[in-house]
Amino acid sequence: MALVVKKFGGTSVGSIERIKKVADHVARARAAGDDLVVVVSAMAGETNRLFGLAGELCEVPDARETDVLVATGEQVSAALLSIRLGAIGCPAVSLLAHQLPVRTDPHHGRARITGIECRRVHEALRDHRVVVIAGYQGMNERGDVTTLGRGASDLTAVAMAAALKASACEIFTDVDGVYTADPNICPHARKLKRISYDEMLEMAGLGAKVLQLRSVELARRFNVPLIVRSSFNEELEGTWVGHEDRTMENILVSGVTLDQNQSKLTIAGVEDRPGLAARIFGPIADAGIVVDMIIQNASADGRTDMTFTVGRPDLRRALEIVRALSDEIGARGVRHEEQVAKVSVVGIGMRSHAGVAAKMFKVLADERVNIEMIATSEIKVSVVVNSKYGELAMRALHDAFLGEEQNNAGPETL
Amino acid sequence: MALVVKKFGGTSVGSIERIKKVADHVARARAAGDDLVVVVSAMAGETNRLFGLAGELCEVPDARETDVLVATGEQVSAALLSIRLGAIGCPAVSLLAHQLPVRTDPHHGRARITGIECRRVHEALRDHRVVVIAGYQGMNERGDVTTLGRGASDLTAVAMAAALKASACEIFTDVDGVYTADPNICPHARKLKRISYDEMLEMAGLGAKVLQLRSVELARRFNVPLIVRSSFNEELEGTWVGHEDRTMENILVSGVTLDQNQSKLTIAGVEDRPGLAARIFGPIADAGIVVDMIIQNASADGRTDMTFTVGRPDLRRALEIVRALSDEIGARGVRHEEQVAKVSVVGIGMRSHAGVAAKMFKVLADERVNIEMIATSEIKVSVVVNSKYGELAMRALHDAFLGEEQNNAGPETL
Repeated sequence: MALVVKKFGGTSVGSIERIKKVADHVARARAAGDDLVVVVSAMAGETNRLFGLAGELCEVPDARETDVLVATGEQVSAALLSIRLGAIGCPAVSLLAHQLPVRTDPHHGRARITGIECRRVHEALRDHRVVVIAGYQGMNERGDVTTLGRGASDLTAVAMAAALKASACEIFTDVDGVYTADPNICPHARKLKRISYDEMLEMAGLGAKVLQLRSVELARRFNVPLIVRSSFNEELEGTWVGHEDRTMENILVSGVTLDQNQSKLTIAGVEDRPGLAARIFGPIADAGIVVDMIIQNASADGRTDMTFTVGRPDLRRALEIVRALSDEIGARGVRHEEQVAKVSVVGIGMRSHAGVAAKMFKVLADERVNIEMIATSEIKVSVVVNSKYGELAMRALHDAFLGEEQNNAGPETL
Repeated sequence: MALVVKKFGGTSVGSIERIKKVADHVARARAAGDDLVVVVSAMAGETNRLFGLAGELCEVPDARETDVLVATGEQVSAALLSIRLGAIGCPAVSLLAHQLPVRTDPHHGRARITGIECRRVHEALRDHRVVVIAGYQGMNERGDVTTLGRGASDLTAVAMAAALKASACEIFTDVDGVYTADPNICPHARKLKRISYDEMLEMAGLGAKVLQLRSVELARRFNVPLIVRSSFNEELEGTWVGHEDRTMENILVSGVTLDQNQSKLTIAGVEDRPGLAARIFGPIADAGIVVDMIIQNASADGRTDMTFTVGRPDLRRALEIVRALSDEIGARGVRHEEQVAKVSVVGIGMRSHAGVAAKMFKVLADERVNIEMIATSEIKVSVVVNSKYGELAMRALHDAFLGEEQNNAGPETL
């Protein structure tokens, strides 16, 4: 008898009919003998509705109160699923973050889990109940409601699986697995059977919306096998995400991703002297803004342009900080582009194969797409391009690295 | 500088526009120097929406999970009002039941408050913040969410006022005070300037929807002055509810009420022997169902008919219990009427004036309304009549006791 954590996203619990289907699935799995902990998101659209209400009352709503507000979404889902499970003879109990508790740091809207107390979960499981956990939420040391950031119900699920030493964490979503690219953009995209944490991390971080980045990090750290599968079709095998193994070795490129949710900022004419980068990026980090790519042009007249990207939701705050700094440090001004596209090629095979970056640049040049920024890691190459060329770039790269004629070199797909 | 508790009901916070108006009112009162604790209900319609979702999933949804579900309504209101107060420069902090905590007994859906911890409220007030409390909800000893029953945000407000020794508890509602009768039914109804707890208790218990019964009881017990006033028009003076004083002494009848939300059950042919009433009403009380009026007909053949009323929401459960009992105790069967009307005349003057009941029966006889049950207390006389005659009976009684030609004997009105 295994202990399994199952996570159902907003679409999966998006209506009364969908909640009934999820309950049926959970009851069948329970009847098969597994101990089950189910983590739920808010019903699709609910979190946006709640943020919208707050937005009507205040341009920048108080972060603590916004967490109190939006945490209700998951609370509703957890209660409804528990009610339905009880109705079909599968005893269940909902547990909210403060009832476990799921302890977090004090950062409202983007809190990090610092610990999970599992006593009530174990009690309920011993009592032969399915435990339904409200995802996305936590409690700080003061007993205040915190939330873990958008999409963080995945994180709750993985953290629960780690804390409970569950045998697996199944992420049910509206796609049936991890694909070599977004099938909505790349018609030739194929579903992957297995993928390593490292590749998934790059894919998640680069805008593949299947799994939340932090949840993959956490799964890797605590060796929690993730299974991404369809909540609409249980028959379909999903994608297994785990540690790298031998079967993955001959894979060159596993996927191509596109992130249209990035903004670009440039501080022009910065005096080129030691300590300036720290002076600029210190306050940005202090504000909790994650900077992705950074480029510093070669200095000519003793001054340089510093360009970097941030997630679009952080653009306004980043601009405020950078504009204030620009005056302080005597820069010549700040430019920004609200939407740029980041296109990336990911694959653990890059570690031992040269030439991926070169091929990538050639493909983009052939399509006449100008590259604005470049960043590389061990297993990925990313470029920033004008946002209107994002999809074109992605399709061209997918076909070049993962197209049908590339099957021999391609990843293990279903 | 006084400490005042203000409670805003569902209509008062029923939309973003209404919440803005409430925030403006609260900020003005704060600026005038009072320390404020604000208790809010769920936005109008939200609690019903949530109960509706549960009802789509299960005919009799699990009580614990239903509380988890519906408690979100007040949580949303509390967060939204706090956000708005912050936006207009009036620092506020929301506190949920589990954060105080508001401790209750374990009875889901109808829990009773057993204690309130005020430490966090005092901290926030010292910090010059308005405290916004989510009404209607509590926490039992296990840390589970409980709710206090429909309309119980009033109760939360009074309990907070009692615990904080507030100088007054203002109940803002969609009417501008307590009337001699429902103005929608009685065109001659007038607003009362003052009313005693005892009268208000009878009025609240008898279907005047202005204040929740238990909140008036609690206010009387802890000497909390209540002020009922309009949330739509702050200029209007409301109705003051407090201990009886000399100015009230010459009031014969203060109000006439109508409750159309009662059901009548009759157990026919019960063997007339000691202990049977306890046998019948014990299990009903155990199920937490409040029985209002009880009539036992004079016994003829050693058997008697036992008739009683319950709130309509409790009818089905009461029927289940009574039908099972009926067989056990060898009764001849159970009849019921889903909707009956209870019409009552209330006034502390009845204590020293005879003849109110007699006059009441005569008025109803003149209107040819048949009286099905009668119950009296020190300060009220109630009758149950066929539901279709409820409004007619109410109007006739109001005009007889409180009509314009009765002004001299009538209550002190505005």
